[in-house]
Parts: sequence; C-alpha cells; structure tokens
Amino acid sequence: MSAETRNRQQTLTLRKQFIGSSCKLFFPEDPVKIIRAKGQYMYDENGNQYLDCINNVAQVGHCHPEVVRAAHQQNLLLNTNSRYLHDNLVDYAQRLSKTLPEKLCSFYFLNSGSEANDLALRLARQYTKHKDVIVIDHAYHGHLTSLIDISPYKFRNLDGQKEWVHVAPLPDTYRGLYRENHKDPATAYADEVKKIIDIAHQESRKFAALFVESLPSVAGQIIPPPGYFQKVAEHIHKAGGVFIADEIQVGFGRVGKHFWAFQLQGEDFIPDIVTMGKPIGNGHPVACVATTKEIAEAFSATGVEYFNTFGGNPVSCAIGLAVLDVIEKEELQTHALHVGNFFMELLNQQKAKHPLIGDIRGVGLFIGLDLVQDREKRSPASKEAEFIVTRLKEEFIMLSTDGPGRNVLKFKPPLCFNTKDAESVVDKLDMILTELEIRKT
Amino acid sequence: MSAETRNRQQTLTLRKQFIGSSCKLFFPEDPVKIIRAKGQYMYDENGNQYLDCINNVAQVGHCHPEVVRAAHQQNLLLNTNSRYLHDNLVDYAQRLSKTLPEKLCSFYFLNSGSEANDLALRLARQYTKHKDVIVIDHAYHGHLTSLIDISPYKFRNLDGQKEWVHVAPLPDTYRGLYRENHKDPATAYADEVKKIIDIAHQESRKFAALFVESLPSVAGQIIPPPGYFQKVAEHIHKAGGVFIADEIQVGFGRVGKHFWAFQLQGEDFIPDIVTMGKPIGNGHPVACVATTKEIAEAFSATGVEYFNTFGGNPVSCAIGLAVLDVIEKEELQTHALHVGNFFMELLNQQKAKHPLIGDIRGVGLFIGLDLVQDREKRSPASKEAEFIVTRLKEEFIMLSTDGPGRNVLKFKPPLCFNTKDAESVVDKLDMILTELEIRKT
Repeated sequence: MSAETRNRQQTLTLRKQFIGSSCKLFFPEDPVKIIRAKGQYMYDENGNQYLDCINNVAQVGHCHPEVVRAAHQQNLLLNTNSRYLHDNLVDYAQRLSKTLPEKLCSFYFLNSGSEANDLALRLARQYTKHKDVIVIDHAYHGHLTSLIDISPYKFRNLDGQKEWVHVAPLPDTYRGLYRENHKDPATAYADEVKKIIDIAHQESRKFAALFVESLPSVAGQIIPPPGYFQKVAEHIHKAGGVFIADEIQVGFGRVGKHFWAFQLQGEDFIPDIVTMGKPIGNGHPVACVATTKEIAEAFSATGVEYFNTFGGNPVSCAIGLAVLDVIEKEELQTHALHVGNFFMELLNQQKAKHPLIGDIRGVGLFIGLDLVQDREKRSPASKEAEFIVTRLKEEFIMLSTDGPGRNVLKFKPPLCFNTKDAESVVDKLDMILTELEIRKT
Repeated sequence: MSAETRNRQQTLTLRKQFIGSSCKLFFPEDPVKIIRAKGQYMYDENGNQYLDCINNVAQVGHCHPEVVRAAHQQNLLLNTNSRYLHDNLVDYAQRLSKTLPEKLCSFYFLNSGSEANDLALRLARQYTKHKDVIVIDHAYHGHLTSLIDISPYKFRNLDGQKEWVHVAPLPDTYRGLYRENHKDPATAYADEVKKIIDIAHQESRKFAALFVESLPSVAGQIIPPPGYFQKVAEHIHKAGGVFIADEIQVGFGRVGKHFWAFQLQGEDFIPDIVTMGKPIGNGHPVACVATTKEIAEAFSATGVEYFNTFGGNPVSCAIGLAVLDVIEKEELQTHALHVGNFFMELLNQQKAKHPLIGDIRGVGLFIGLDLVQDREKRSPASKEAEFIVTRLKEEFIMLSTDGPGRNVLKFKPPLCFNTKDAESVVDKLDMILTELEIRKT
C-alpha cells in the first residue's frame, strides 16, 4: 500500500499495533501525518503547509537538493565500511578540523549523537583511568544505557543517580541559583563545580570528565554566562578529568556568530572532546567525535580496535561534506545570525506587550521564550505554553516546549528560516497571547 | 580534491593524520583503496576487481539499484523523525512482523546493531526488574559501553568482567567442552547455563536476560546444536529473565533454510527479543528491535519516552522495505541455501585433500573453515590462516579470519554470491593450500 492510499487514522491504527508505545507522537491526541518537506516547510497528506520551527536536524533545510544529490551519487558508487581506504572519510575529517581549534584533530565517525557521547565517555575514561562524571542539572546526552546514567533529565524518572555521577547546578541566570543581578555568575556557578569535586575527593572518587551541552537545550534553552566553561574546565583539569562539549543539538552554525556554540564562551576556550550529531547529516544518521591526539592515542594504546559498522562510510561522509558545502555557499551561519537578531527584536517587542513572556534568550536560531505566570516570582506558565503550541499547530506552525517546567517555547528551525517566517510566527504568537489574555480577564 | 586525484599513499597519510588510530584498516601493512562496488564485486582505484567474501552488510549486493532508487526517491520527498505519522514506518514494521513469530509484534527502529542491543538490554531490565546477564563465551554484541560489558571478546582486553555478567561456555561441538562425540551436547551445554544460574542465585543475584548471537560469529562461525536455545530459554525463563537473540550478523535470509538463524533451532523456538542490524539496510545505518507486547508495555509503563532522532525515519524505512523486496523478488534466501550447499560440497572435497582443514561448518552463506595444525589435537593454525587471507587478497579475493585463535576462515558474502564465485574461491584456496604444503615439506 502506498503513502497516498492510507488515511491518517489507518496509519495511526497500524502504529499503535506495531510500534513500541514508548515511541511518542507529537500531539498524541491529534497527530500530524507529514508526507513531504522542503526547506523550512512540511506538508501533510491534505497539502497543508506547516512552518517548521522545531527541526534542528534538517539544518540546511528539508530535502536540500545538493545534499540529496550527494547521497545519491555516492550510493550509486560505493557504500562500505571504513576498513578500506576512501577519500570521503579523510576529506570529511580534514574539512571538520578546519572548523575546530587545531588541537582537536582526531576524528571518529558514528551513526548518532548517542553513539558519539558514549564514545566520548569511553575516551575520557580510557585517557584518565578515572570513572566519575560531572553533569549539569536537567542535561540530556542520549538514549543509551550509559547516557541515561549521565542525563538527569532521564535518570530521575528511571533508575536514579549512580554513585559515579555528580550533578552540578544549571548555570541559568534567569531561574537558577545565581541570576542576572549577581556580579559574577560564571565564577559563582563554576565554584559549585569546584565544591562537588572537593567533596568527591574526600571520598577518594576520581573524575573522568565534565560533560556539558554547549547550550543546555532540554533544560530550557539556557545560555551559560561567558567564562563559565573556562573556569569549570580549569577545575576538571586539576581533578584529572577532561571537558566534553556536547554540540549535538547546537553546533554547525546555528548560533550565528560562531560555527560551534562553545565558542560563545570566548576564543580562548578549547574543549578536550567535542561531540556532534543531529544537523551534521541533515537527517542522515551520521555523528562524530573530535578529540586531541593525546586522548586518541591513549584510547588506542589498549590495542583494542574501535570498529563501527556504518560509521564513516563513503555515503555518510559525502552527505556530511555536502552539508558543509551548503552552509558555506548559502552563508547559513551569517543568515542564522541576522534572522536570529531580527527574530529576537520582534520577540522583545512582544515582551513589552505580553506579561506572560518572562524571559527571551537566544543566539542565532537557538531561541527560548520563558513563559511565566508572574514576572516577579518567575513561576513557570506550563499550561499556557502547551496551549500556545497547540494553537500554533492549528495555525500551521510547528513549535515545541522544553525546560523542567515545560514552559519554554523552543525555537530551533532549519537555518534557511527567514525574516518573513519570523514575522509570521510573531504575528500568530501575538494573536494567541492576546487570546489568552482575553480568556483570563 | 576528488576521489580520483588522490593516490593511495596520500589517502593513507591523511587517514593517519585525522582518524583515531583505534580505527583499523584491513591489511594495515598494505591497505586497499576501494572506490566503487557492484553486487559481490569491489573495485580499487586501479580498476582491479575483488570478490567480496566478507561483507554481510551489503546483503543484496553492493549498490543494488532498487535499494539506491528507494533511498533517492524518499530523500527527495521527506526525511524527518518518527514523532509524525508516516506510512513507511508502519509498513516496515508490519512487513518485518510477517517474517517473525506472531508474538514478536512490537518494533523499535534505530541506527545500528549496537543501539539495538543496548535497547534490548534496557527492555529486558525494565521488564524483569533484574540486572544480571548471561552471555556466551567469546561473544561480541557491540561497541557501546553497555555492550562491551556483555562482550567477552572485548571486555577481556579492556575493563574486565563486571559482577553482573556471567559467561557460559560456547556451544562449540568441534573445539568446546562437549563435542560431536557427545550423545546430547545441546543438553550438556544448556546444563552449564543452569549451573551458572544456580550459583548466582545462591548469591541472590537476579537475571534480566540471556544474550545469544543466533550463530556466534566472532567466536569462530559456530552453529549451536539444535535444541540448545529451547533448553537455555527454559532455564532463563525460570530465573525470571528473557531470551535475546542477536541476529545482527546472521539474520535476513543468510542461513538459507530460514529467514532468521534462530529458526535453525526448531520451529517451536521463539525468542523474547530479536535484534537486527547490519544487512537490513544494505549499508544504510538502520537497525531494529522486535519484542512482545508484554515487554514493550512494561517498558512504556515508566512513562519515559523512547526517542531516537534518526530511528524509523522515512528514508531508513524505505531502504529497509526495498531490501526486503529484493530478497523476495530475487529469491535470495533460496539462492543462499543452494549456493551455500554447493560451496560446502566443494570445500568438503578440499578437506579430503588438505589436512590443514580441520572442520567445515556452515548454513547457507554463513560458512567457517576451521584450520588446524593437527587434526587430532585441533590446534589452531593461526599463522596459516593469516597467510591464506593475505594470499587470497593478492588473488583479488577478500576474506577474513575469526575465532579466539583467529584460525577460522569466515565466509559471509553478499547473498548474490554465486556458484561461479564459489568455484573461483575454492580453486584459489586449493592452490594456496598446496603452496603451503609444499613450503612445509
């Protein structure tokens, strides 16, 4: 049966029959069936066009012709494993190395961000010979057993916190321990990490790594205060551990000013390991770990091979190269910067108008609208956020919420998202916020 | 720089510079650069044609036009995550369910066999609320932290055996505890599993799962005695655990008589969880876990979502469906049976001629040649195996060795491998074995 002959209800029935029920749908009460997409737009089976404000995987736009062409050309020629020499693998690694600090020159290719973070953990442990990990509160690093262990977002609802995992406060200057009125939140939050290390050392625990999303995303689109990474890196290095920057959600030009989100902390900051995933294949399953020669050599000193069946195959690398080409040719990083700034300006005008908007934070096309019931108390407006997302869907705009209170509207569209799209989102948002205010009075 | 302009040495130099040295090459002293492939043949940059006897990922043949077309058509239309309804996802799950016992009707899609085995472990633990796992000696279940823990092939050279991991003897009737002369090796090997459970129970340990490759592969192309799975399944069930069949290397028609290798044990045997990977996307990163409704429901009862960014995307599913179509249309399962039988016959003729061949075991196009220095002592002929593989490469035949002694020649070609290919391999093998014998005398 082809895609066109089955209606939404039939697809849903089969989904309930055959797909594990832990796999959730957006809008489970009234899910959307998407059958094609182009750029920042998706289309359902009735031809309705949705503006996609969610998909940070389709980085250069859904079904970008150059990426699709690169995949097809390589698929026609060869798709095999990396135990044979192939130029795509080395070209891709070399190309990525040019976007990173020189020190990060050893690459591993894999199939998902989760695989990348798992390898990063293995690299850190092998290099340091230590086990413990510091993570940031509410972090999410992936769906694998090892990553649920280091993801407070997940382990709090599952097996709980392992003895080798230490949770540092989220460096959130809007809702966290130290806020915008603190004279030096970077140092204050970094000192919390130092405290954790000191206490653990008293119990003779030893640190392998500090694992940080360069911009904590499921935690509520958080932008850590600049200088925080340098300071915590110093603490973790002194403790014998390494700094792992998880760029899976936020890397690859999204933040506009820089190619990598960790660079927002300052030009002097260099992580020991960087993990990348989601956007780098524009939807194709590909991911990467970049690290230093020293860490790579310590990992190989065991003599144990690292083999990933699909990792670094010529097709994945051809797609990865095409994505880099498109970002460059279409100047999507600069585009993200300009459109992001324009979007933030429009949103800030809304903040003046609608008291529900407590905070607007963003860089490039990574933007969070923190909705509050009360601007003083900053109490999360969770229900309102859900209402807005549901209403936006009726207006054919796809958006999602995040943060521990699920009250943060989360913008992370494909990078081809433009100023007209931003205007359209803000118009609809204004309308819905006004609706909400009328209902309340 | 394009693939054509860089010579082998230049590619190798860049590889050494940019790729983590744990990622090994075949024939590291003289690696091969492969630039295209078709069916069971691969081609280097000088146009040399190699017969591929290794690649159990390119199941329906390298670059199969129907698979490539399916990928391209879907790539042009849509590639997004499974939070939206899409027919490819449900079609693929329904189609796979038809190849499996009815009970295995809940599916999860992922990007690699490793991701599949990690999820299987999570499912088993959530369902049973137990932690311990029994694995078979020399098993390999993947490269992730959680899977190295259950892979004796890996953990013996790394962090060692965890207290929750129990290793059962390999049911190898040629080299193992109970051999071809034993009256009931299936029961004898299953009793060893029972013993492990009894001892662990005395220490109050509780079992989540028995994890078994349906045909242990890196352990040396082993074919467990029929009835073994039924008996160990009974033991693990009584202990409250589940039976996980890892079909990643050997499923999807390779064994000829059946679609799944676990079916070789008898029609009455049904695993609780089946994991699949490598061949199911013919090189595209896709994998799957199939389980029962009960296990799937227990997993979702936590309320925690399972989300895999790329898992079950329309492109991966379109490719998966195309692979199933080709296996059916080209009757590759039957083909594997016939060619495998023909190949085994030719190899058995060689056994009569060459004392180096100790044992030949195989089903369909999963065949192992166990080389021995002495047929009585069955001492592994490791050096000879390495010599043969190196010489075969000079004859443009790609083959690899495996087994704890690295003395087993391992045949697992694309399923389009034909009788002419088999003849050509056996001719060359005969020649090289004769060379070896002359050198020895």
